[in-house]
Amino acid sequence: MSNRYEVRLSGAGGQGLVLGGVILAEAVSLYEGNNAVQTQSYGPEARGGASKSEVIISTEEIDYPKATQIDLLLCLTQESCDKYVVDLKEDGILIADSRMVKDLPEGNYRIYNLPIIDTAKEKVGKVFVANIVALGAIAHLVDAVSLASVEKAVLKRVPPGTEELNKKALKLGYDLVE
Amino acid sequence: MSNRYEVRLSGAGGQGLVLGGVILAEAVSLYEGNNAVQTQSYGPEARGGASKSEVIISTEEIDYPKATQIDLLLCLTQESCDKYVVDLKEDGILIADSRMVKDLPEGNYRIYNLPIIDTAKEKVGKVFVANIVALGAIAHLVDAVSLASVEKAVLKRVPPGTEELNKKALKLGYDLVE
Repeated sequence: MSNRYEVRLSGAGGQGLVLGGVILAEAVSLYEGNNAVQTQSYGPEARGGASKSEVIISTEEIDYPKATQIDLLLCLTQESCDKYVVDLKEDGILIADSRMVKDLPEGNYRIYNLPIIDTAKEKVGKVFVANIVALGAIAHLVDAVSLASVEKAVLKRVPPGTEELNKKALKLGYDLVE
Repeated sequence: MSNRYEVRLSGAGGQGLVLGGVILAEAVSLYEGNNAVQTQSYGPEARGGASKSEVIISTEEIDYPKATQIDLLLCLTQESCDKYVVDLKEDGILIADSRMVKDLPEGNYRIYNLPIIDTAKEKVGKVFVANIVALGAIAHLVDAVSLASVEKAVLKRVPPGTEELNKKALKLGYDLVE
């Protein structure tokens, strides 16, 4: 990967994207030794129910913490996909939930249309772990972070008693990517 | 307040400052109708155990999401106070924990040396609500956000079953400021 790597997690409020961003940033910084900046922006869209969370990863100090040329975009709703795909760079990775995003964008992207929400709901039995399933897929696709580091970061952040559930969600997400 | 208002929450990892920043950003944006950007930066200090979280509040779109001229600085450790007070602007508000920060800075600041951690530990009985006690004090001191908005945002983010504990922590923190 080039030195700066930009990730945006997008979808609706309540899908755990803020926590997802925090976990990803902590995984790459605390357990991989990179620097990270994690940002949430709240404006009129947030009041309308949309949610996004960004993580910038770099081996060097990060001067500008906003994502401008996105390397990996996660979309858990059609609306977020329609809105944010313009910021994804050519050959960038798009992970789109296959239940929610039916209309995939045209363009030179590496598209992974994955059953993230269905996996959370049907295989883990808890739809609220969709964010962790997504992190598993991201861990598979991003060189700067390993599954082991994300797992450590997940276990540091999730409520006590939900560790096994979350580990399972993470591994299932990892395995969604061939 | 002027249009842009910058808050930095600082201390050690495990003090809940990331969650504190998220709650403050959601309070001002979802319940007060302002815009907010909330950022965590993870670098070598984070690996050393330090933690900081920033919230920029504005009525307008926020172009540059990093704090540069801080209006309110929370310090839950001496180290964070020594390190970050240089970024606090003249007449800015410094909230320093009275147990942890014994050596207060010189300068033209509005200093509140408050027993945040002691209040969490002794009056609520849970040291992990120190972040929420701090948010209560911040709600008292920042015009852009009311206690009611912060309470709504707290209740949206804390684990089920801890609502009353957190409401109590918030109110006690609010009352620490005369």
